[in-house]
Amino acid sequence: MIETRVPFDAFFRPRGIAVIGASTRPTSLGYAVARNLLRGRHGAAVYLVNPKGGELFGQPLYPSVAVVPDPVDLAVLVVPAQVAVSVMEEVGQRGIQAAIIQSGGFAEEGPEGAARQRALVEVARRHGLRVLGPNCIGILDLFRDLNTTFLPPPLPRAGGLAFYSQSGALAAALLDWGLAVEQGFSRVVSTGNQADLTLADLLPAEGDYPPTRAVLVYSEDAVNTALVTALRELTRHKPAIVLQAGRTAAGQQAAASHTAALASPWDRARAGLRRAGALAAEDLSTARVWAQALVRWPEPSGDGSRLRVAILTNAGGPGVLAADAVGQADELALATLRPATQAALREGLPPAASVANPVDMLATASPEQYARSLATLLQADEVDAVVVLLPPPPGYSAGAVAKALIPVLQAASRFKPVTVALLGGYLLPEARAHLHAAEVPTFSTPEDAVLALVGWVRAVRGREHARAIPRRVAPSEPLEALRALLAEHDAEGWLAPRVLARLLDAYELPRVAEAWARTPEEAVRVASKLGYPVVLKLWAEGVVHKSAAQGVRIGLSNAEDVRAVVEGWHARFGPRYRGVLVQTLAPDGPELIVGGLRDSNLGPLVLLGLGGVAVEAWDARAFALAPLTVPDLDALLAESRVGPWLAARAAASLPALRELLVRVASLLADLPLAELDLNPVRITPTGPLILDARARVMPAAPAPGAATGRAQ
Amino acid sequence: MIETRVPFDAFFRPRGIAVIGASTRPTSLGYAVARNLLRGRHGAAVYLVNPKGGELFGQPLYPSVAVVPDPVDLAVLVVPAQVAVSVMEEVGQRGIQAAIIQSGGFAEEGPEGAARQRALVEVARRHGLRVLGPNCIGILDLFRDLNTTFLPPPLPRAGGLAFYSQSGALAAALLDWGLAVEQGFSRVVSTGNQADLTLADLLPAEGDYPPTRAVLVYSEDAVNTALVTALRELTRHKPAIVLQAGRTAAGQQAAASHTAALASPWDRARAGLRRAGALAAEDLSTARVWAQALVRWPEPSGDGSRLRVAILTNAGGPGVLAADAVGQADELALATLRPATQAALREGLPPAASVANPVDMLATASPEQYARSLATLLQADEVDAVVVLLPPPPGYSAGAVAKALIPVLQAASRFKPVTVALLGGYLLPEARAHLHAAEVPTFSTPEDAVLALVGWVRAVRGREHARAIPRRVAPSEPLEALRALLAEHDAEGWLAPRVLARLLDAYELPRVAEAWARTPEEAVRVASKLGYPVVLKLWAEGVVHKSAAQGVRIGLSNAEDVRAVVEGWHARFGPRYRGVLVQTLAPDGPELIVGGLRDSNLGPLVLLGLGGVAVEAWDARAFALAPLTVPDLDALLAESRVGPWLAARAAASLPALRELLVRVASLLADLPLAELDLNPVRITPTGPLILDARARVMPAAPAPGAATGRAQ
Repeated sequence: MIETRVPFDAFFRPRGIAVIGASTRPTSLGYAVARNLLRGRHGAAVYLVNPKGGELFGQPLYPSVAVVPDPVDLAVLVVPAQVAVSVMEEVGQRGIQAAIIQSGGFAEEGPEGAARQRALVEVARRHGLRVLGPNCIGILDLFRDLNTTFLPPPLPRAGGLAFYSQSGALAAALLDWGLAVEQGFSRVVSTGNQADLTLADLLPAEGDYPPTRAVLVYSEDAVNTALVTALRELTRHKPAIVLQAGRTAAGQQAAASHTAALASPWDRARAGLRRAGALAAEDLSTARVWAQALVRWPEPSGDGSRLRVAILTNAGGPGVLAADAVGQADELALATLRPATQAALREGLPPAASVANPVDMLATASPEQYARSLATLLQADEVDAVVVLLPPPPGYSAGAVAKALIPVLQAASRFKPVTVALLGGYLLPEARAHLHAAEVPTFSTPEDAVLALVGWVRAVRGREHARAIPRRVAPSEPLEALRALLAEHDAEGWLAPRVLARLLDAYELPRVAEAWARTPEEAVRVASKLGYPVVLKLWAEGVVHKSAAQGVRIGLSNAEDVRAVVEGWHARFGPRYRGVLVQTLAPDGPELIVGGLRDSNLGPLVLLGLGGVAVEAWDARAFALAPLTVPDLDALLAESRVGPWLAARAAASLPALRELLVRVASLLADLPLAELDLNPVRITPTGPLILDARARVMPAAPAPGAATGRAQ
Repeated sequence: MIETRVPFDAFFRPRGIAVIGASTRPTSLGYAVARNLLRGRHGAAVYLVNPKGGELFGQPLYPSVAVVPDPVDLAVLVVPAQVAVSVMEEVGQRGIQAAIIQSGGFAEEGPEGAARQRALVEVARRHGLRVLGPNCIGILDLFRDLNTTFLPPPLPRAGGLAFYSQSGALAAALLDWGLAVEQGFSRVVSTGNQADLTLADLLPAEGDYPPTRAVLVYSEDAVNTALVTALRELTRHKPAIVLQAGRTAAGQQAAASHTAALASPWDRARAGLRRAGALAAEDLSTARVWAQALVRWPEPSGDGSRLRVAILTNAGGPGVLAADAVGQADELALATLRPATQAALREGLPPAASVANPVDMLATASPEQYARSLATLLQADEVDAVVVLLPPPPGYSAGAVAKALIPVLQAASRFKPVTVALLGGYLLPEARAHLHAAEVPTFSTPEDAVLALVGWVRAVRGREHARAIPRRVAPSEPLEALRALLAEHDAEGWLAPRVLARLLDAYELPRVAEAWARTPEEAVRVASKLGYPVVLKLWAEGVVHKSAAQGVRIGLSNAEDVRAVVEGWHARFGPRYRGVLVQTLAPDGPELIVGGLRDSNLGPLVLLGLGGVAVEAWDARAFALAPLTVPDLDALLAESRVGPWLAARAAASLPALRELLVRVASLLADLPLAELDLNPVRITPTGPLILDARARVMPAAPAPGAATGRAQ
């Protein structure tokens, strides 16, 4: 059962292909697959296999894959699920390395199908054969004219977009859309049930396929570490847009009945996609907008800062809609045009035109005025990107305007992304054709034209993120020693407080000054050493939420009070009483929650949130994979809104908070904690201070017969 | 200067039309307007006016509007801005009631144009003449074949959508889009600069135009009380979708340079549109989706509760995308199919099909299976709406599937909204044509098909809201007496605390028990009367934020402490010291912010938010117009998240909080306060309690020469 490396050439550049289940019935899928492969100019020999024998398209139908001539690198199975396993056995015996199983009737159809799928994989593993599918439509390479699918012609033209899709139907739909909007594709790969090969196995190679300029991914299985790693390899080179299904409870329920995948909550999965350097699209329409733009633009470059956008229009209304869309996007800002730029614009325009941003050339704008104004904006240092709005111009054809823009774009000395909104429909195909030929993306609303620019910024940042290396801080004690400490926990896995304190200290995490005491006398001694006023916190077996159990007393200012509180707790909790934590009273300040957990798909994650009502009512938290990269840190602070909020109130505390987050993430990456909860972390004038902490270890696998698991 | 009522018939059913500025130059707008009007079968006489005289399209060019034959109800001006005022004088003298001014060169082009626009309005008022524009493209009625615009043919077919647009370019773009997607229009009305007639003047009448089934509005001017009132009249009868420009700072900046309008922040404007019963669209694409659906569906009906949506598909992937979209929408839920429904579905489908929701019929689904399954879902009581997903079906044409669905929809005994996602592009026009002919809206993504259903719920709720009557609670003192109290305020308009207390009492707003004191002795007396522990709050001239000034002391438990605090404040603030507020210490509980302000466009607004960090970092507030309707109350609680948050923690407190909000809103509606701030309102076991309050009166107009205004 050794997994063989993926035989990419066998899948994508096969010398010979066997179509098993080729059929003479014109409405069958086996007929369509044979037709598509025989028509292609991909250069591979195509052999048709059907036990009934006979002939199809002038080719013999071989009775079995065993007897087709050499070489055969790829088998395409279009056979009933019931016979798929035995056919695979033949394929394996024939020494074929790669198989595409289009047939459905496997894990997507209940327990019987799942058993059949396991049998299929077992056969494949035994023969060192790699499988795409089952329940997929196969591979399409528009440049090599290789089409293993059953999709009827016509297909879109060859172009820069690769689409990797778990759903065959979505692949078919996207190809059909490509035809309608003139979007070219390089490859389409449908992975179906992913019984063997997954998106993660295949995606990294797309980085090496020269015709592909951007990759769109539709994924239904959970976002996991393997997918993140694979996407990182890809997005170092090319932008990847991921449309992840199952982002909501309803979607997960739908996906589970379909793929039996158990997804992580979307805020965690999104943290994975962020680390992956991918653009997470929240719907198909957004995915298409980003794909249309990124395939037409050069490799993402720049520092990932906000794009300063200029809007060029011949009508005020659409200009305002575009400005609103810019205003809504964190990634964009409306460019402030300098007086020199405004003066240059003014020269070519009527006096009533507006040369502030949006630049409104008025309804009379000619193709020349569009061209000249665009040139001025592209030359302006204060402009990073331009949105051109083209409602049906009253006096000229949109096609004429489009044609006039192209030389300007081609003459630009430095690339700046430009998008065009062709507002309307009927009057505009000519304009679209011109612009697409010149690799300018066009859209049908001002908002989509702006959204495309958001895609550019995310692609730039994604590439940067894929290249960022997580920072890891080593603990001051040997890891082995720390791991050994984890044995000291209660029945539910909660670590003993003194153990957790030692772990935090090993990562130099700033805790409030504190000490443990058991007796009232000890507590008084400790308190006077720490200095009054102090805080007392109860430690009792089974008490996790100390505040709820009235186990926290704040601001005790003398020995008498300390003694009284400890005596009271002792009496109240009896044998469950373990002791008290005596802390100095920390200075006032805003409170945060810093935490961590281990996700079954993504491993250790850090979380950051504002304390109190914000988290409870607004779920105002953000996640990132541990250990953290710099872009992760930036995202944690931005998405939780802790960053902007602290920047306005205690900006000096931000560097220390970042350092704390890096250290927490290192701890989480090093040690198998199920859960870590630093709550609150108070932002004090001298830096962040952990006021309370708890942690739980991963439950060990239960011993045979044991009712509950318990780590050693 | 008396405003005449709007002569709707003169604009929309004129007996005679004078085109002033009709031109023989084929590229001119005057030529195009004349052509469009002469071609129409609207039944009005069309007279062309041009001082040069001559002939056009076989019609005489009259030298002046003074000499055209009777009757003339409508003048369409396509003349240079410079002569528009004198031409309007002629139109007025001729006794024409209605004018459309297409010419630009007015307020949209700086101060000179604005002066010209004022002159135009002055002429119109003097003659009792009502004006549409300037800077607009006029009126188009597709049913009457009346077209006062310059837009070249072809136009879309006559249909149920009315479009009222401040932007002529957007009107042109939407008509062109209508042609491309086969969306019919009833009327298009372009209001341009709205020098005289505004959207608010015109919209209510659209409710009486039978062919119009839904109204789309593009508005650039601020959402104001007049627009809200007008929309309410309309949305009682027909759904209205409003795309409001200037929702962001960037958009407002763009709109201001274009229309010089000063907009309210979007969260306030949105509260206005909510009261208006309109669907607020956040982008053009959403507006189009809702418009396409609502024109095809009957009048909104139902109770506005969540729609339980069934998804019918032949492929899992798109089904998951649709389920995610359902999961993201507050207005929708995935229907849980009953066993009987699942059994009925099962009968017509292959064993491997999934009959849970989404219903996945598998790729082999035939037109008959689509039809039969849809019929089953429409009959199921647990299903309120259906999304049908139609990727290019491998075995059948999408057109055949579409055709099969139509009899099912027509046979349904009760209307349930059904949308179809035609996934793809090229292969689907036939299916679209069939479905549109049967009034079924189609979209190109699963998400848009789901979004259309959100539109249905919002339309139902909007209609309900337009019919809801705000509730007003009368104060226990005469309003005149309360108004007289408002004179007692400081230089910045802040009301004296005792005045505000009396106002709150008059509306029976629950305040914490409290009393004012000046001397330490008085404070001690008051405190012992209220009962210890007490809270002391400073009142000193110029101190608005008491906590920041260390002017709040909580939990004082004896006379000694009270005396010491009051003495300390007296010493610290000297002559600025006015006294202290002594309050009983309220029980612990969650804290809210309830407030109010007077918006220059929308009048008094109530606001509700969670206290503390939530508001600071997340701007977690919601607004509603005062006084409040029941739907406003629901929205305030939902949008601020106070409702769900309290429901989970202190559900019993909700009725009292609703009552408090109604009373606060009544106070704001009755009295001219600029600002009211009840912060915090604490939710205690016995109900909400106002712990602190401040209010500012509206600044009076400054007296001539006075540096700062001061109310009497």
